[in-house]
Amino acid sequence: MIQSYEPLLALFHSHLEKYKSGLSTLEPEELYAPENYILSLGGKRVRPLLALIACDLFGAPPQRALNAALCVELFHNFSLIHDDILDQAPLRRNQPTVHHKWNTNIAILSGDVMLVKAFDVLQSEPAEQMIPLWRVFTKTAIEVCEGQQWDMNFEQEAEVSVEAYLKMITYKTAVLLGCSLRMGAICAGAGEAAQEAIYHFGKHLGIAFQLLDDKLDAFAEDAEAFGKQTGGDIISNKKTFLLLKAFEMANAGQRKRLQEALQIKADKAAEKVQLVKTIYSELGIEQLVQQEADLHTSKAIAYLHALNVNNDKKVLLEQFAGALLNRSV
Amino acid sequence: MIQSYEPLLALFHSHLEKYKSGLSTLEPEELYAPENYILSLGGKRVRPLLALIACDLFGAPPQRALNAALCVELFHNFSLIHDDILDQAPLRRNQPTVHHKWNTNIAILSGDVMLVKAFDVLQSEPAEQMIPLWRVFTKTAIEVCEGQQWDMNFEQEAEVSVEAYLKMITYKTAVLLGCSLRMGAICAGAGEAAQEAIYHFGKHLGIAFQLLDDKLDAFAEDAEAFGKQTGGDIISNKKTFLLLKAFEMANAGQRKRLQEALQIKADKAAEKVQLVKTIYSELGIEQLVQQEADLHTSKAIAYLHALNVNNDKKVLLEQFAGALLNRSV
Repeated sequence: MIQSYEPLLALFHSHLEKYKSGLSTLEPEELYAPENYILSLGGKRVRPLLALIACDLFGAPPQRALNAALCVELFHNFSLIHDDILDQAPLRRNQPTVHHKWNTNIAILSGDVMLVKAFDVLQSEPAEQMIPLWRVFTKTAIEVCEGQQWDMNFEQEAEVSVEAYLKMITYKTAVLLGCSLRMGAICAGAGEAAQEAIYHFGKHLGIAFQLLDDKLDAFAEDAEAFGKQTGGDIISNKKTFLLLKAFEMANAGQRKRLQEALQIKADKAAEKVQLVKTIYSELGIEQLVQQEADLHTSKAIAYLHALNVNNDKKVLLEQFAGALLNRSV
Repeated sequence: MIQSYEPLLALFHSHLEKYKSGLSTLEPEELYAPENYILSLGGKRVRPLLALIACDLFGAPPQRALNAALCVELFHNFSLIHDDILDQAPLRRNQPTVHHKWNTNIAILSGDVMLVKAFDVLQSEPAEQMIPLWRVFTKTAIEVCEGQQWDMNFEQEAEVSVEAYLKMITYKTAVLLGCSLRMGAICAGAGEAAQEAIYHFGKHLGIAFQLLDDKLDAFAEDAEAFGKQTGGDIISNKKTFLLLKAFEMANAGQRKRLQEALQIKADKAAEKVQLVKTIYSELGIEQLVQQEADLHTSKAIAYLHALNVNNDKKVLLEQFAGALLNRSV
């Protein structure tokens, strides 16, 4: 964490704790305990932090964006509860997922109420900010659902283009970062052009983040620091930027070898990872994904630079973006 | 349908058709086809109609409440999609439920996006109405989720009080009727006291409706008109007002007979229904549920009478309420 942002994170944590202690008084308990549980699993709180950072960046007290910050964190956690059902995931941050700890019905319903609460916490905002907040938040929430559905569709589809993949990760992951920043900017009273710029900064940052995530899954030098098994995406035939780009670039021979490698069963996982990575290496996929990520990082930074705000704060946010992409946040 | 309300219903249907044709242009198709499907299964459209009726009752053109009407209808249908998953229901209005026609993942996600869209359609409302609309809608949406969770909890609980049951049906069913009317009143620019009154009219009407639903399940003279198998609740040991009231009133002998009757398996369904209904008859349960429903109907009508609005329109709404309770809407 960039040191200067620690007070903002502490501010959010204190707001979140207040919200959670409110939750624990609500009934029926089965509906609210899962919400409390998932909000207590931790995480970097990147989205709420971005809301507070943007509010501060545009010269307003960050406190003004606390409800917007809570809104995006509630939405993000609602989506985790429901996505874990869709993915049949047993674990989230090394703890049982909600549908495993309780059951699927409770996970559906407690996710639903959490989604409504994401809207509910915006209610106390001033009227002139509420409508733009609502507008970007509903638009983003719809896009996140669409991104999740594209992702599910891709599992069933034989051919997915790199372009469709980029659209999917934009919707599923990146727009919520842009939305968080834009909501913070709205709370600070920033103008439309500034809101747009900070939104696109966040969106391109999010795309770069997801592309580097794909890259690290195959090429992390320090798998422990990355926190996942290296090659997990390869083993599960996940349609990532790497695999889709490889299919796009491959000649007939490479395509055939790639398709054969994808047929290899889990008991020969190491061999499979090795074969796929050899083809990636022949095609320069590691460099290509890095280039694509760099392109989006540059776009993000250009949007940030064009903003007419305090330069020190701009530099700080640029550092934070760099740290996020380097997984050191 | 009360003849005078037919133009309002036609108004809503035309608005809904426009919304649905917008849906069919959206992607990914898997996300929006289920929404289009469930909105096409029909239904009495009681909630949106109530929103339009209230707007008209308070002297504004009913067109003003079309988005509020759409909002409550989208929310209601979202809740049907998710409730059908929770209940593992194969059919809804004699057609396959969404999770049967597609799958559970698609049903979860298309329900989620529909819930967001319920908020989204309010976006174009004038700023001064948006906040009160948002307030009553989020509060109600939360209560409906709570009611659904209470209902799920009751299935697992050995003892449920009549009082807890009344609270559950209030949340699960009745508040959305009150909310629909209140949203219509807000769109008409009605004052706070009038909004409250029409809300309580709808809420008590909803409680009466559900109690009569419980009664008809056991005592419908014309099962075909009621549209369900008579005694279905008894066969499935559903904790309705009738069963809970019977346990509350029963002496030791009757309680023992009731408990024995509940153990009877599905292959002796007719015998089970007969035994339980004999005990209901001894305890006067049919009269008690009718009395409780009448109490809430009277409360509803008292709220309506106290309103300072056009008397002819009041009489019309009272007739509609009567028709709704008599299942002739």
